[in-house]
Amino acid sequence: MTLKEYSQIMIPEIEKALKSTILKDIPDPFPGLQEMMNYHFGWLENNNSQKSQGKQIRPIILLLCNAVCGGDWKKALPAAISIELIHNFSLIHDDIEDKSDLRRGRQTLWKIYGIPQAINTGDAMFSLAQINMLKVGNEINKQIGFDALQRLNETCLILTGGQNLDISFEKETRVSLERYLLMIGGKTAALLSASSEIGAITALTSENNRNALRNYGNALGLAFQAWDDWLGIWGEEEQTGKSTSSDLMTGKKSLPILFALEKDEEFLQIYQDEGATQENYRKLLSMLENNGAKKFTEDIAKQYTDTALKSLEETKVSDKNAFQSLLELTDLLIKRNN
Amino acid sequence: MTLKEYSQIMIPEIEKALKSTILKDIPDPFPGLQEMMNYHFGWLENNNSQKSQGKQIRPIILLLCNAVCGGDWKKALPAAISIELIHNFSLIHDDIEDKSDLRRGRQTLWKIYGIPQAINTGDAMFSLAQINMLKVGNEINKQIGFDALQRLNETCLILTGGQNLDISFEKETRVSLERYLLMIGGKTAALLSASSEIGAITALTSENNRNALRNYGNALGLAFQAWDDWLGIWGEEEQTGKSTSSDLMTGKKSLPILFALEKDEEFLQIYQDEGATQENYRKLLSMLENNGAKKFTEDIAKQYTDTALKSLEETKVSDKNAFQSLLELTDLLIKRNN
Repeated sequence: MTLKEYSQIMIPEIEKALKSTILKDIPDPFPGLQEMMNYHFGWLENNNSQKSQGKQIRPIILLLCNAVCGGDWKKALPAAISIELIHNFSLIHDDIEDKSDLRRGRQTLWKIYGIPQAINTGDAMFSLAQINMLKVGNEINKQIGFDALQRLNETCLILTGGQNLDISFEKETRVSLERYLLMIGGKTAALLSASSEIGAITALTSENNRNALRNYGNALGLAFQAWDDWLGIWGEEEQTGKSTSSDLMTGKKSLPILFALEKDEEFLQIYQDEGATQENYRKLLSMLENNGAKKFTEDIAKQYTDTALKSLEETKVSDKNAFQSLLELTDLLIKRNN
Repeated sequence: MTLKEYSQIMIPEIEKALKSTILKDIPDPFPGLQEMMNYHFGWLENNNSQKSQGKQIRPIILLLCNAVCGGDWKKALPAAISIELIHNFSLIHDDIEDKSDLRRGRQTLWKIYGIPQAINTGDAMFSLAQINMLKVGNEINKQIGFDALQRLNETCLILTGGQNLDISFEKETRVSLERYLLMIGGKTAALLSASSEIGAITALTSENNRNALRNYGNALGLAFQAWDDWLGIWGEEEQTGKSTSSDLMTGKKSLPILFALEKDEEFLQIYQDEGATQENYRKLLSMLENNGAKKFTEDIAKQYTDTALKSLEETKVSDKNAFQSLLELTDLLIKRNN
C-alpha cells in the first residue's frame, strides 16, 4: 500500500471514531458540548469539506508507526483519536490566546460561541482525549494504556510550556535562539514525538523501536518548523513574488530573523529602529543571506531532517509498505526538495 | 482522632505534595508555568495565608473516605493532589469565563498574567492532575490507577457539561428546575462524588463501599448547593439584616427563585417587569415564603442531606475515627442546623 492508499483507509476510520466518541462519550445531558465540538470539526454544516477537520497528520503518523512496528493499527485507533483530540483542544485554546478569527477557512469556535464556552469546550475535549487513551488499556492491556497516558500527559506539559514561552515572546524584544528552539520543541515537535512513540508503544514493540520513533517524531517536528520558517521568508518570495506576507514584513520572530538579530549588529539596528518596510525589504533580505541567517536555517532544517531519517533507519521494520508510506509522509512534511 | 486533628496532619501533607509536584513534574525549561501555579496558590508572596490555597475540602474528603474503607491514606495522597489540581484548574478557567477579579481575597491569575497565559496555565494544571493520578498506579497498582483515571475523566466531562449549562443560563430568561439541578450536579456534586469514590477505589474496598461513597459525595454536593442557595436569600437577611447582597437583589438564578418563576405567575410578572428592587424586596421575599419556594429549597436540601447520611450508614467502616471525622465535616458543609 502507498501513503495515498493508507490515507484512504485510515482517514474515514479516524473521522468515524472521532464522531463516535463525541456522540457516545459526552454524557447525553450536555448536547451543547457535542454541538461545539462538531462545529469545530466542521460537521455541523451540510457541505462539510475534508479541510475543516484538518489533515490528521498526527493520527496517521501514529497509526503508520504502529504498523511499521508490527501492530494491528485498528487496535491503536483510540490512541490516534486521543492525539487528534489533544491537537484540536490546543488549537481551540490557541485561537483564543492568539485572537485568531479563522481556522481552516472557517470562523474559530470562540468567534461563534464566545470565549467562555470555547475555553470550556477545549477543556471537555482534553478530557475526551484522556478517555480515548484509557480505551487503549481496554483494547490492548492496562500497562500499555498506562505507558501511553504517561507519555501523553508529559507531552501536554511540554506543549503548554512551549505555549507559555510563545506568549511571553510577544512582549520580549530579544528572544534567544536557544529559547526559540525550546518553544518550537514544545509547540510543534512534542506532540509529533508523542504520536510516533505511542504508535510504537501500542504495537508492543522493542525499547529500541520506541526510542527510535520518539526521536524521529521530535526531529521531524523541528525540521518541519525550521523549513516552515525558511518558507516564511524565501518561500513567499519565490511562490508569490510579493513581500507583504513575508515573515520579515509581518514582524514574526522566526529562526532566520532571530539568528540575524543575535549575530548581525547592523541588521539589529535597522530592524529595531525602522522595522521592516517596503523600502528596506530588499536590503534586509540580502543581509539575511549574507550574514548566514538563511544558511543557518537551512542547516538546522537539514540537520533535523537527517536525524529524523537516521532514526527511521534505526527502526526494525515489520511492515515495509507502512515504512515506505511513513517515508513518503516525512518527505511531504519537510519538503526536502526546497 | 477528630476532624481537627486529621486536618492538622493532612493539610501540611497536601500542601507539601502540591508544591513538590509543581516543582518536580513541570519540566525545568518552563519556569513560567511553575511561577503562575505558585501564584495561584498564594505561594509567591512571603506572607502567604492558609486562605490563599483554599480549604482543600476535596482532598480531605478523599483521604478520609480512603481511611474509612481501611486504606493507608498516605498512599492515596497522589489521588488527593490530582483532585485538588482539577478543582484549581477549573477555578482558573472559571475566573476567566466569569470575568472574576478576585479569588480567595487575591487578584485572579488572569488579572495578573493576562487571559492567554492563564488559559494555558490551567491546561498545564489539568495535565499535572493526570500525572498525579497516574502515580496512584505506581503507588498502589495499575488497575486501581486505571479505575481512578477513568472516574476522574468522566467527572471532568460532567464538570465541563455543568459549566456549559451555567454559561448558557446567563443568556436565558427562563431556566427549568430540572436543568438547574443538572448544572449544579455537574459543577458542584460531580467532583465531590469523584473525591469520595476515588477515596474508596484507592482503598481497594468493596463495590458496595465504592457505590455508597459515590452516592454520598454526590448527595453532599447537591445538599451543599441547595443550602447555599437558601443562605443566599435567607442567610444574608438573618446574618446581616441587609438585603443588598441577597441573591434576590443580585438577580442570581438560584433554586428558590427558579421555583418561584416556574410556579408563581404573579412572582414571575413582578420579577420580569420590575426586577427586584429595594421597594418590592419585602414583597418578593414574602412571596417566596408563601408560594412554597423557601420550603421547596429546604426540602431539597434535607432530602439530599438524608441521602448523604444514609449513604454513609451503608458504608462498612474500617476506621471509626475517620468515619466520625467525615460525619463532622459533612455537618460543617451542609450546616444542618440552619
